[in-house]
Amino acid sequence: MSNRTAAEPRGQAGPKLERRLLLAGLVAAGSMRSSDLHADDAPEVPPDPTKEPGRPVGTPYGSPSSFATAARVLETTNASANTSWSYTPLERIVGNVTPSGLHYERHHGGIPTIDPDRHSLVIHGLVDTPRRFTMADLKRLPIVSRCHFIECSGNTLSEWRKPSAPSATKSHGLLSTSEWTGVAFSTLAREVGVTHAASWAVAEGSDAAVMTRSIPLDKLMNDAILAYGQNGEDIRPEQGFPLRLVLPGYEGNMNIKWLRRIELSDAPFMTREETSRYTDLRTNGIADQFNFVMSVKSVVTSPSGGMRLAGRGPVEISGLAWSGRGRITGVEVSTDGGASWQPAHLDTPPEPICTVRFRLPWTWDGRPARIQSRCTDETGMTQPTHDELVAANGVNYVYHYNAIQAWQVASSGEVTNVASF
Amino acid sequence: MSNRTAAEPRGQAGPKLERRLLLAGLVAAGSMRSSDLHADDAPEVPPDPTKEPGRPVGTPYGSPSSFATAARVLETTNASANTSWSYTPLERIVGNVTPSGLHYERHHGGIPTIDPDRHSLVIHGLVDTPRRFTMADLKRLPIVSRCHFIECSGNTLSEWRKPSAPSATKSHGLLSTSEWTGVAFSTLAREVGVTHAASWAVAEGSDAAVMTRSIPLDKLMNDAILAYGQNGEDIRPEQGFPLRLVLPGYEGNMNIKWLRRIELSDAPFMTREETSRYTDLRTNGIADQFNFVMSVKSVVTSPSGGMRLAGRGPVEISGLAWSGRGRITGVEVSTDGGASWQPAHLDTPPEPICTVRFRLPWTWDGRPARIQSRCTDETGMTQPTHDELVAANGVNYVYHYNAIQAWQVASSGEVTNVASF
Repeated sequence: MSNRTAAEPRGQAGPKLERRLLLAGLVAAGSMRSSDLHADDAPEVPPDPTKEPGRPVGTPYGSPSSFATAARVLETTNASANTSWSYTPLERIVGNVTPSGLHYERHHGGIPTIDPDRHSLVIHGLVDTPRRFTMADLKRLPIVSRCHFIECSGNTLSEWRKPSAPSATKSHGLLSTSEWTGVAFSTLAREVGVTHAASWAVAEGSDAAVMTRSIPLDKLMNDAILAYGQNGEDIRPEQGFPLRLVLPGYEGNMNIKWLRRIELSDAPFMTREETSRYTDLRTNGIADQFNFVMSVKSVVTSPSGGMRLAGRGPVEISGLAWSGRGRITGVEVSTDGGASWQPAHLDTPPEPICTVRFRLPWTWDGRPARIQSRCTDETGMTQPTHDELVAANGVNYVYHYNAIQAWQVASSGEVTNVASF
Repeated sequence: MSNRTAAEPRGQAGPKLERRLLLAGLVAAGSMRSSDLHADDAPEVPPDPTKEPGRPVGTPYGSPSSFATAARVLETTNASANTSWSYTPLERIVGNVTPSGLHYERHHGGIPTIDPDRHSLVIHGLVDTPRRFTMADLKRLPIVSRCHFIECSGNTLSEWRKPSAPSATKSHGLLSTSEWTGVAFSTLAREVGVTHAASWAVAEGSDAAVMTRSIPLDKLMNDAILAYGQNGEDIRPEQGFPLRLVLPGYEGNMNIKWLRRIELSDAPFMTREETSRYTDLRTNGIADQFNFVMSVKSVVTSPSGGMRLAGRGPVEISGLAWSGRGRITGVEVSTDGGASWQPAHLDTPPEPICTVRFRLPWTWDGRPARIQSRCTDETGMTQPTHDELVAANGVNYVYHYNAIQAWQVASSGEVTNVASF
């Protein structure tokens, strides 16, 4: 295999060393106890596994191998771990779906512990019949299952002024993809009877932040899911157990977790999270409000920042592309800083408002190279360069950054984050 | 919600009672310690979660809620837990993908503990250049990701003589669906150079059973994946960590776990698992050998055996359909014992050799009803009735049972397993 080139995290001399490095990094960041990380276990490995019986069947719920190292990465710049976030380790994800245990997190008041037997959803306001639905009530109704990404509106905010995130995880890891299962809001709307006066709603979570966002009624009626299932099982606590509002393609913050109330109205509610926060400041001093849709976006996850190519030769370029407006129709990859672009292969037919894995074989000649991806969605939208995006929105826009990401491969093989032109 | 009817597991007075019942059942079966089941934790639930801070962010790898109850069900009829199996709890799965922690298991020598740094795959025999590939070597090669089901060839064997499995889990739960990621065998074939004489191969696992099966070379070249990824992360230990051969649509046993060797040859190897086992005995005393493909099949998972409808009114009928030959093109549902059939809705466009979730709303009038599903694949194959299948193959065929499954709803609402005609 000496003629092949690997894109591996730097310093990866093997799983054991890597585990120690990973652990050291996370512990140094003050984010976890060593006992939290399954990879810290030191399993007994027989010299020849065919010569002794293996572990018996009978674990009711399985876990990753003790050699597995993928772990969420905590952001440590925030003062309180209750109001902090963790990234999906994008360069360690293979395929398209995010394992539920690695779904990114962003909490405003921590993760509440909720007994599903005592949880309910109230729908009231401009409806004919206000109703309280228990979880058992909701599970009796017709079910929908669809794959969608959820992306924090602040994903990639590090890149507005200059390329600064050291890795794809830190630049784009507030993005995860799950199969969501639950009840369509439109089904509940028939139960309560939406009045003609209704045009907006507010959704409210039962966390300590009482997270509250205004949502156009059209969006709720069109494709919103009140999800109690994630990737085939109960939705995870960090994602809103027992009930989350999934608004496909809308900024993550609006996908209200631990959902307890939806009130229909004829105007938005001007909650804290849509006035003081989650608005986008333009250079003229005017802020964009209700900028809901996460736009067309892609990132190369391998090779990406923090990796090192082992030497010249074949390299597979791979990443994820997505759009809050619909299906991805194409992804192009450049290895020469945008001078030329080649169409990438998509693993699977893209689903609407879902990530798709793209791949392109490449042969590295050992010289500096700049790797970028740009994608287009079915509405015809395509990603801007960094300079185009900044020219349009300025550098204080904070949210909704979707410019082309660029990774520079040095002649040493080291990969770093650089600007896209 | 009094006008609605739920299909819930019988005796389900709420999650707490259900957890106790589940736990009691599993403990009674001798299959697990109570501490194995995450649902046994008794979490502190605040009276109002909005009035106190939630749990902080920072778990590197998340777990299901302590209120979640989905667990694999161990088959206890086997003498040794090293050579036993567990079922995916099908009636508790929502959506299409099986959570990795709930993927069914079937082991012949237990689950080996393998250090991926010390694991390798040898490809030899009728090749130009025999090669040993380390896991690092394999991860340098071009990657494919596809969703496929894996089904044990013995799935549903309880139904040959008479309907006997009490639930969809016990009748059809040796079936799971994952997104598999790894290297196409065809890529490795180019590395080693397949000779013209080669037409078969044998794949060998590194478990204590040294599981060995013969595979036509055409199948390997067509769509086999040497998978190191499952649902976005490292393949789980029970599924073959660090490397599994995925042969889409072929009987589960051939999807060799803990894969260490592939030898190319000009004839099958006649291993124990294709002579004494995994052959299908016809009534004339002749056994079908090399009966690889899992055929077109479906099952209604809700309502299904062991559930009870709470009363007349709307019920959503839902289940899974799959075929080892290609895409599912349609699923029909009958509620009158096969007298009439209605097309079911498919959640998503079916992928080749993958399950698809189907659904059909139904209104139960409170009278006895017989619920069945039958599906068709893109080759035009459709499911037989039980009687048709037995007429063709006899009752000692053991493997590859794919007849229409029937669930009888009594006027009490109780759902039981009955014959399909």
